[in-house]
Amino acid sequence: MGDLSQGAAFIDDRYIPVAEASISLLDWGFLHSDATYDVAHVWKGRFFRIDAYLDRFERSMQRLRMSVPYSREQIREVMFELVRRSGLRDAYVEIVCTRGIPAPGSRDPRTCSNRFMAFAIPFVWIADDRLRAQGMNLLISRHQRIPPESVDPRIKNYHWLDMVMGLFEAYDAGADSAVLVDAVGNLVEGPGFNIFVRCGDRVITPARGVLEGVTRATVLELLAAEKLQVSTELLPAAMARAADEVFITSTAGGVMPVTRISGQAVGGGLPGALTARLNDAYWALHDDPHYTTAINYGGAPNEE
Amino acid sequence: MGDLSQGAAFIDDRYIPVAEASISLLDWGFLHSDATYDVAHVWKGRFFRIDAYLDRFERSMQRLRMSVPYSREQIREVMFELVRRSGLRDAYVEIVCTRGIPAPGSRDPRTCSNRFMAFAIPFVWIADDRLRAQGMNLLISRHQRIPPESVDPRIKNYHWLDMVMGLFEAYDAGADSAVLVDAVGNLVEGPGFNIFVRCGDRVITPARGVLEGVTRATVLELLAAEKLQVSTELLPAAMARAADEVFITSTAGGVMPVTRISGQAVGGGLPGALTARLNDAYWALHDDPHYTTAINYGGAPNEE
Repeated sequence: MGDLSQGAAFIDDRYIPVAEASISLLDWGFLHSDATYDVAHVWKGRFFRIDAYLDRFERSMQRLRMSVPYSREQIREVMFELVRRSGLRDAYVEIVCTRGIPAPGSRDPRTCSNRFMAFAIPFVWIADDRLRAQGMNLLISRHQRIPPESVDPRIKNYHWLDMVMGLFEAYDAGADSAVLVDAVGNLVEGPGFNIFVRCGDRVITPARGVLEGVTRATVLELLAAEKLQVSTELLPAAMARAADEVFITSTAGGVMPVTRISGQAVGGGLPGALTARLNDAYWALHDDPHYTTAINYGGAPNEE
Repeated sequence: MGDLSQGAAFIDDRYIPVAEASISLLDWGFLHSDATYDVAHVWKGRFFRIDAYLDRFERSMQRLRMSVPYSREQIREVMFELVRRSGLRDAYVEIVCTRGIPAPGSRDPRTCSNRFMAFAIPFVWIADDRLRAQGMNLLISRHQRIPPESVDPRIKNYHWLDMVMGLFEAYDAGADSAVLVDAVGNLVEGPGFNIFVRCGDRVITPARGVLEGVTRATVLELLAAEKLQVSTELLPAAMARAADEVFITSTAGGVMPVTRISGQAVGGGLPGALTARLNDAYWALHDDPHYTTAINYGGAPNEE
């Protein structure tokens, strides 16, 4: 069945190397980006908050009027099996539902059979070791994030051209990534992350127009232990520029410091103490059985 | 090499049945809808304005900073070859460029090799015979079309979740399709079509936030022969509701009458004379060698 150690996929009820996994050119999941997905991560052989990701995936499918012939428990089992078969200890596990292919001669999405597929690949950090230590330079993009009135951002989706063009814009400006804005210039989210700022004892993350990230939610929970006023609301660009501390949150790395906004130092240009404390607390949760579920690799060294 | 008569694809330098054509799950063309495409049509064995579609495809790739290892002439040849091999006399020919797969461990689109693929499938009308004769009931959607500030609509793209949700909304309301709006309620475009209205001797089609359709451009050219004031500008919903005539334009059908807007009759509830005249003129151009290019099917009955 091929080498699954570089990543495994589940598609058409088979487990295959991810490099061989593909979808039909005619699936609306490709031709109309008519799909939803979610990505949980595995760290040191344990899933982190897998049920939070499954909850969101189920809500996303409902909102897109999709359903698949797999129960939640079966999808959960596929996720474990992908990691077990690949042997990966640190991994992303992506679950996907696509609209499928309309009946011949039709352009009616109601004639489609929705399709489920999944894959596990090695963990990739959104920011490398150096950037996580020193802090990122985050460009405020001139691209607006696709607004909620067009595509509900609570439905995790592949509509990323705004994000990708924001990345190119960031690289052109010598920045490490970009945060996109809304129609009136408030900061919203970036490619794969939510954003937080601290101004004195206030901490703010955008309330609207963003993916409700699991890492974002975890950080909001961790912030309850801090003596800070925390709120989700609008985040004007000027507030981020004047902040004492800025950080981003992502399944692809946890809590990561931002030390420059569009090239200008924020918070003295050094990673903040709150950022470091939250990141430590976030990763510490990865040893907590309340937040994680061990994968049984079947006799391999990391078996639990 | 399989039966190509139901559609043929060109991928990885091979011609295969379209039903067998697929792209990698890991291609950002799928995972981030980071792709552009174009669709030309073949009618009675002739391509219609193929160079207009190729021009737009080239511009779209440039705007997304993509390039492929095929010249324009080679892409054009692939398009002809797909139709020749499939034997289809009435077809869509879709050409696609995807970002590709980033280097291992990277999330940087600059590390991707962009990919080119193409396919030919039988022609599918956006509206069936009955609707083209009687006119469509077009719902004004509450979904906003993804704005130009997020994704440049002149780049033909697969960001369609707003369109698909608009279609579901239309079906729920008993309508045939939907036209999406901008942030302040002007009509913009619908799934696969541009919209025109006639009020007295004025004809308007939205100037902004829309794909610059080849059929739209062709109709604007045909309108020059009419004694009408034609302009591209904002199209308030109220103007469409009060119009004497409403029609949509698409590669997938030409010029098609709209006789109801959100269930309310427009223009007396019957297809308009201008609509019919433009549609006849549009299809008449399909016999004109200035607008079309014959396909050499190699000895088959329709050879030209």
